[in-house]
Amino acid sequence: MSESDWPRRVTIVGLGLMGGSLGLAIRRAYPGVQLFGVDRNRRAVALALKLGLIGRGAPKLSAEPASVDLVFLATPVGAILELLPCLPTLIGAQTLVSDLGSTKAQICKMGERLLPGRFIGGHPLAGSERSGLAAADPELLRGAPYALTPCGDAQEPALERLARFLQMLGARVLIIGPEEHDRIVARTSHLTQLLSVALAGLIVEKGREDERYLRLCGGGLRDMTRLAASPYPIWRDVLRTNASEIDHALGEFREILERLQDRLVTGDLQAEFARAGELIEHSPANDRSECVEPVGG
Amino acid sequence: MSESDWPRRVTIVGLGLMGGSLGLAIRRAYPGVQLFGVDRNRRAVALALKLGLIGRGAPKLSAEPASVDLVFLATPVGAILELLPCLPTLIGAQTLVSDLGSTKAQICKMGERLLPGRFIGGHPLAGSERSGLAAADPELLRGAPYALTPCGDAQEPALERLARFLQMLGARVLIIGPEEHDRIVARTSHLTQLLSVALAGLIVEKGREDERYLRLCGGGLRDMTRLAASPYPIWRDVLRTNASEIDHALGEFREILERLQDRLVTGDLQAEFARAGELIEHSPANDRSECVEPVGG
Repeated sequence: MSESDWPRRVTIVGLGLMGGSLGLAIRRAYPGVQLFGVDRNRRAVALALKLGLIGRGAPKLSAEPASVDLVFLATPVGAILELLPCLPTLIGAQTLVSDLGSTKAQICKMGERLLPGRFIGGHPLAGSERSGLAAADPELLRGAPYALTPCGDAQEPALERLARFLQMLGARVLIIGPEEHDRIVARTSHLTQLLSVALAGLIVEKGREDERYLRLCGGGLRDMTRLAASPYPIWRDVLRTNASEIDHALGEFREILERLQDRLVTGDLQAEFARAGELIEHSPANDRSECVEPVGG
Repeated sequence: MSESDWPRRVTIVGLGLMGGSLGLAIRRAYPGVQLFGVDRNRRAVALALKLGLIGRGAPKLSAEPASVDLVFLATPVGAILELLPCLPTLIGAQTLVSDLGSTKAQICKMGERLLPGRFIGGHPLAGSERSGLAAADPELLRGAPYALTPCGDAQEPALERLARFLQMLGARVLIIGPEEHDRIVARTSHLTQLLSVALAGLIVEKGREDERYLRLCGGGLRDMTRLAASPYPIWRDVLRTNASEIDHALGEFREILERLQDRLVTGDLQAEFARAGELIEHSPANDRSECVEPVGG
């Protein structure tokens, strides 16, 4: 399958953790593919060339050879929205464009308008609190859910191709509408990030009054606040482009907390713990085989 | 130091994750110590004997030899509160008693009353969502904060002995009052647990309407909901014996969430992310050397 004749040439714009990891995975699964890399950080480009990750690199996307089959936009969401308007004049008429942004509705709306039938949004739910090409990992996508968010029916054949390509990298592809994607990840990812930030913030505030708050911390707090170290510039774009759903999610979570607080007084949270425990049973980590959406024939 | 002449005989009541891990650590650091184990689960006792963890075991605490120097109560908090009234008639006049319960005010009050000058509360902030002797790990205490919560001044020499003993197991001992301990861990541990339960519960609820909520989950959610799998019976006791502080902590957290939600609309959470990021800098994992409270001479 890795000898497939598509894609032959792939451009990745943004050689950070995600773009770098995608590149490394492609390099491994598709050794014949020519990889081009673009990053405004010249040191990232130099590193990617030195590592043999890309065969050609540039600090800016310029007119791409028409023979580039696939362009991945792996920058933060704000930069994706700035890049998209430039793409129609820079890429060939057959080039398929996808992205790795964490929110999809705004990006897909713009992509479909500017590159009708040639843009398919994507979002790998992988990553870590680390960032940059130095943290890139060819295994980052393996087993990770990877949403593909087409808009419009005209994309069917391209969608199948792209989904198969990503599945060969080990990703668990799920095809879903952009708005539905944003509604779901507002809870599973964006709310989660904000809770981590809020919890870490509370402990830091308390720690300013009494430094023992910073010492009586176990592994649970460490797990729960690991995300809080994620870089804000990436999250700023995510929060801005999905503010309404995140606002709803925060409202729902606050209601659940209020319920927990009420039951704390009556002394019975068994039902809450039991419900929470169900998540572990359903966890993708426990059930990998079931989670690859069948894609076409 | 491990050739120290105190303690020579140690009894551990409760051979679960914590008691088992404590026993394994003692076995390693103090090979000369005689370990006795008590657990109402006969299979845990049999396993502990088979592993060579303990030299003698029983399903119930009975009259202990007066030569037992130290008894650790490593059961859930509720069982500690039930065990304490039996201890004065079962142990020698020189035996020091400590516990590993997650809340300290109620336990220490009872311990000080029933065993004046001979009870010192303890709480290792270690553990995992797993439980039982099979999950015990001799390294669980290494680097972990370990609160010792004496009540009254008469305990000084015993406190020093116990603190040194635990430091030799690799624990980072912090001496703190029981009420202050409970106020702090209400935020760093108990709130943290409830947030994990609330988040996992929200995703499970959503997942019942749309199973894609259970599929579009990344590593961040996994980290944030790992705690939610902790067994409820242990937490029931913790929540009941620290309800007032946990109630305050939930209130504070809800205020922070409200502030985050307000700022989401104005689009600037930079200050919140920056404050949260400070926790990582202060993280004990980054600063182990500073975190051992000097204990006496």
